[in-house]
Amino acid sequence: MTSYIRYTYPQLKKFCEDCFKKFGFTEAEAEIITDVLLLSDLYGIESHGMQRLARYHKGIEKGLIKVEAKPETVFETPVSAVIEGNDGMGQLISHKAMNICIEKAKKSGMAVVTVRNSNHFGIAGYYAKMACDAGLLGMAFTNSEAIMVPTFGRLAMLGSNPIAVAMPAEPYNFFFDASTTVVTRGKLEIYNKLGKPLPEGWALNAQGKGSTDAKDVLANIVAKNGGGIMPLGGETEQTGSHKGYGYGMLCEIFCSIISMGLTSNHTHTNGKGGTCHGFVAIDPNVFGDAEAIKEHLSTFLRELRESPKSEGQDRIYTHGEKEMFAVKDRMENGIDVNINTVAEMFEMCKYVGLNPVDYLGDVNFDEVNATSSYK
Amino acid sequence: MTSYIRYTYPQLKKFCEDCFKKFGFTEAEAEIITDVLLLSDLYGIESHGMQRLARYHKGIEKGLIKVEAKPETVFETPVSAVIEGNDGMGQLISHKAMNICIEKAKKSGMAVVTVRNSNHFGIAGYYAKMACDAGLLGMAFTNSEAIMVPTFGRLAMLGSNPIAVAMPAEPYNFFFDASTTVVTRGKLEIYNKLGKPLPEGWALNAQGKGSTDAKDVLANIVAKNGGGIMPLGGETEQTGSHKGYGYGMLCEIFCSIISMGLTSNHTHTNGKGGTCHGFVAIDPNVFGDAEAIKEHLSTFLRELRESPKSEGQDRIYTHGEKEMFAVKDRMENGIDVNINTVAEMFEMCKYVGLNPVDYLGDVNFDEVNATSSYK
Repeated sequence: MTSYIRYTYPQLKKFCEDCFKKFGFTEAEAEIITDVLLLSDLYGIESHGMQRLARYHKGIEKGLIKVEAKPETVFETPVSAVIEGNDGMGQLISHKAMNICIEKAKKSGMAVVTVRNSNHFGIAGYYAKMACDAGLLGMAFTNSEAIMVPTFGRLAMLGSNPIAVAMPAEPYNFFFDASTTVVTRGKLEIYNKLGKPLPEGWALNAQGKGSTDAKDVLANIVAKNGGGIMPLGGETEQTGSHKGYGYGMLCEIFCSIISMGLTSNHTHTNGKGGTCHGFVAIDPNVFGDAEAIKEHLSTFLRELRESPKSEGQDRIYTHGEKEMFAVKDRMENGIDVNINTVAEMFEMCKYVGLNPVDYLGDVNFDEVNATSSYK
Repeated sequence: MTSYIRYTYPQLKKFCEDCFKKFGFTEAEAEIITDVLLLSDLYGIESHGMQRLARYHKGIEKGLIKVEAKPETVFETPVSAVIEGNDGMGQLISHKAMNICIEKAKKSGMAVVTVRNSNHFGIAGYYAKMACDAGLLGMAFTNSEAIMVPTFGRLAMLGSNPIAVAMPAEPYNFFFDASTTVVTRGKLEIYNKLGKPLPEGWALNAQGKGSTDAKDVLANIVAKNGGGIMPLGGETEQTGSHKGYGYGMLCEIFCSIISMGLTSNHTHTNGKGGTCHGFVAIDPNVFGDAEAIKEHLSTFLRELRESPKSEGQDRIYTHGEKEMFAVKDRMENGIDVNINTVAEMFEMCKYVGLNPVDYLGDVNFDEVNATSSYK
């Protein structure tokens, strides 16, 4: 059984910003980092919000994430830029990279910006949304520590390699953000914490065979013993494994290949992060009337939502709809944070010299501390 | 049991070019159409080569495909073009569109060309390969008659919506071409012809529930009774259905949305085809040294192929490798054409006034004619 504590958005925002300032980030930087992390919690993507704080904390502590590092544009044209991240905070590098991408797209019609030597950047969708909020078609990609096992392999060689796409529409923007693996590592961690067997078709053991043992799979991933998560499409070509693997490669191309950065199989080795990202922005005006295109997309999305439902289902979602409702709910009613995550947030406060009770209230961790994954 | 007749590449090329010339296409046009169709057979993608001839024949006969139609650029910028296909032959419109895209990318660094009111264009990969052969990163998308049922739906609303990506590498280019459905309709047709039940996780019946009855599913698709093929990722969110549906949407955006053309749910209605395509070309030089990027990709592809294999598997493929071997084999040893397809090719010869025996030899169809799907 997992317990949650409910916080308001402003509470978590204040906590998060103050912590990152204590780590040495400027106020403006702390705001950006917080905005990325909390959008994830608002969207209901628990794995990439407060739950990731411990990872950033550890990254900074170990020197993987360099607080003072500034990203540099090392190559550019009117439609492109290559950014050297200098091992800085992923959110800051990526926020800057997407802003450059948007600016270029507004001038030139479209742009691709690629980033090397960065760190975990939060949810890919945040950056696609930045372009969308500017009226553009936005895409974002990132590689990561290897977790996806290629079809017929037994060693993880690609990251979860998400592809995010966002485009203006009414009444909800199109917003798609998904890993090219069947699921992400976060899902495996949840099953592990609950002690539940994994569904078939998600993970592979050290021999490259289907496994439902979350604990074993996670341990093998950490020890690089083999195994990992299947590409979208599962284990065999019959269910389209090679397709998910192909989308993972598309992601890798926009991140590590064109930036000349580390491919997923080489990131997070030898005391280095080395994560790579890719950003795309396209101005719909280069195809005619952006407003008409927006209406056209809105019509198709409405037709999808209104199309006949499968027996037993009462609604068809279009991408971004669930997130819209989640934001509304969480802004009104608050954000539930897993008690283990709250414990990590307490530890982080203590580490940076803040009093956690001022931010997070008085919490009884007698039972919880024992199961906290925070070291 | 299915029988095949083996033909050489030059034999099929001559047959195909002469047929299309008889339909009224110029010699140059017939060559392009033939080149697209035969690359599919050379790649071992039987469904999109000679097997599709009957569909083109019927399309021309019914007036869906207009032989005399010329594509027109109706909007353009240095990085983009919108092409009105005027219901012409998909291969000709798309060949022109990708050439425009390549030319713009060579000048501006990257380009997107979108097409409306076209027809079936063969394999998406052909056009991605065109860009790749010009030293660029190429992508191609097409929508089609609706066949993909969105997650929780029971009516097909998106096409098979393939995404193709190609990029220069050694010793084989990266070449990925896959529908965003689990499988394409062609696979269902093969199971139907063989009278075999479909694997679980491919298709949905008229109520939107999983079905293994190929005949029933295909009949429902034709009658638009509901049902169709699942998105990559299957039927439920647990296996990632919403992700395949999302990639299908990405495809739709580059085809029908930005071109202001017909979305898949509206194509092939009211006596109109209305297929839309999208093409992307990006010059790797806008990220620095194209040769270094090519080497970097080649290294990663090699590392993937050389990575440890799953128990019982002796090789990991990178995308494009199987196609390379297939071309080599078929150019040396010939191309096997399904006897039913050969029957259709005979009918086509007769329709356009050519003697099939001159092109395809003397074939005994006593038994075969009964099962030919050609009307």
